[in-house]
Amino acid sequence: MRPEPFFAGPGLDRADAARAEPERIAEFARSPLARELVWRDGLPALDADGSLQWCEVSDSSLFLGLNGDAPCFCGCQRDIAGGPAAFSLLAGLGIADAPLFAAALSLARWHSRHGFCATCGHENEIVRGGWSRKCPACSAEHYPRVDPVVIMLAEHDGRLLLGRQYHYPPKRYSALAGFVEVGETIEDAVARELKEEAGIDVADVTYVASQPWPFPSSLMVGCTSRALSDELTIDFGELEDARWFSRRDVAAAIQGREDAPFLPPPPHAIARTLLERWLAA
Amino acid sequence: MRPEPFFAGPGLDRADAARAEPERIAEFARSPLARELVWRDGLPALDADGSLQWCEVSDSSLFLGLNGDAPCFCGCQRDIAGGPAAFSLLAGLGIADAPLFAAALSLARWHSRHGFCATCGHENEIVRGGWSRKCPACSAEHYPRVDPVVIMLAEHDGRLLLGRQYHYPPKRYSALAGFVEVGETIEDAVARELKEEAGIDVADVTYVASQPWPFPSSLMVGCTSRALSDELTIDFGELEDARWFSRRDVAAAIQGREDAPFLPPPPHAIARTLLERWLAA
Repeated sequence: MRPEPFFAGPGLDRADAARAEPERIAEFARSPLARELVWRDGLPALDADGSLQWCEVSDSSLFLGLNGDAPCFCGCQRDIAGGPAAFSLLAGLGIADAPLFAAALSLARWHSRHGFCATCGHENEIVRGGWSRKCPACSAEHYPRVDPVVIMLAEHDGRLLLGRQYHYPPKRYSALAGFVEVGETIEDAVARELKEEAGIDVADVTYVASQPWPFPSSLMVGCTSRALSDELTIDFGELEDARWFSRRDVAAAIQGREDAPFLPPPPHAIARTLLERWLAA
Repeated sequence: MRPEPFFAGPGLDRADAARAEPERIAEFARSPLARELVWRDGLPALDADGSLQWCEVSDSSLFLGLNGDAPCFCGCQRDIAGGPAAFSLLAGLGIADAPLFAAALSLARWHSRHGFCATCGHENEIVRGGWSRKCPACSAEHYPRVDPVVIMLAEHDGRLLLGRQYHYPPKRYSALAGFVEVGETIEDAVARELKEEAGIDVADVTYVASQPWPFPSSLMVGCTSRALSDELTIDFGELEDARWFSRRDVAAAIQGREDAPFLPPPPHAIARTLLERWLAA
């Protein structure tokens, strides 16, 4: 079976049409089936089986959608945890609730940091069941961000380029990555990032898979590419190291062998999916 | 040759490393080769040959990058034109300057609407040569938006699903499209949008190509998919019509034949590329 990225899958019915109807959302909130996401230490709380925890609705600010007949809500959160706390929670998160976890976390965090109108500075208000904020002063409407990020392998002569960021745990190497900028295609961004960070030119950029990554709200776009040379010029402002690994090296890392020359990206990261697909190809 | 989307291509060297060094950008601005984008009626001005117009630097707020040795700047713009004026300008825009046109337009428009900190409401300041704004009160940093949008064909039994938005010119049909939301993969977003707008379930979602679309700052992600049925339930809140077209219909439309049953999307839209690639496959 083809390895799929974590966080992929349909998750909830987002019931998009209801967002424009505040009365319908209010009715959903009064339903005996309605439920609200439980938060703990700034993150969605998980049951022992890896599913999200729910309680009766007391704050229906954010309407996540319908799970079967059950309307699902999320209250406004002031402080959202990031970094290590968030990543360690992933180990216990079940795959079925992962897309909903990602949506709720990104949405709640966006609201926690966007209480004011970027256009005029006035306090703005939640509209569309939490899928937008509108300014009562200037009428500007602002939508939750989804930031596309390219993450890519480069192959040369059967070997893969992987890099280390300074904050990685010891021995970990992973795919290089960077934000897509205005005016760029996905393919242009892949080529630019590999040139900037590793000094290589690439061709044949090929899309592989995508993944929402809710820390805070990226859309990871996974690609492969063919490097025209293996001569690296590493940008040490961005990377601690980058080097080429053979198929045998990558296989040893994914299999978790003791003699592996590096530790692979964790199972929830799309970089891991890219390596697994490359090995399977 | 495989049809490539308009706005694709490397454009400028974005000289990303210089953005963190204000002295280097100031030095670039003093270079005799430095130049600033000319604006006219709220849009970048074009020469008769379709290239961007430049003048001496008087406002170096936004550092676009290097064109050969020439540092390219863009001044802050208060009013950016949208809609019909912007689209009609595209007809005269040369392909070589298209990526730079897209970057400058999206970046300038983002600044024109993000003068205040969304986190605290204070006026914020341009930093990183225009590639970010920082709040002097709460230190929050805000980056230009790139909003991923899926745009997709659905195929059933050799026919393609295309739709009409209410504002389209008469007879035009094009690919369905919608914003990727937090917590979604590209593939999930394609399936959700086709379900919402046309009532169909799809499988085998396949990435085709991407395109920056600077009205205001989308990243169009073009895909194909296979519809499991041809029975449509159209959301008339979103679409005026949607229907299935045969290969012969699509070929007639792309060839501009008088007997074509619909007008295709314009040459600069990635929807056109999707149709051309589908015909060529």
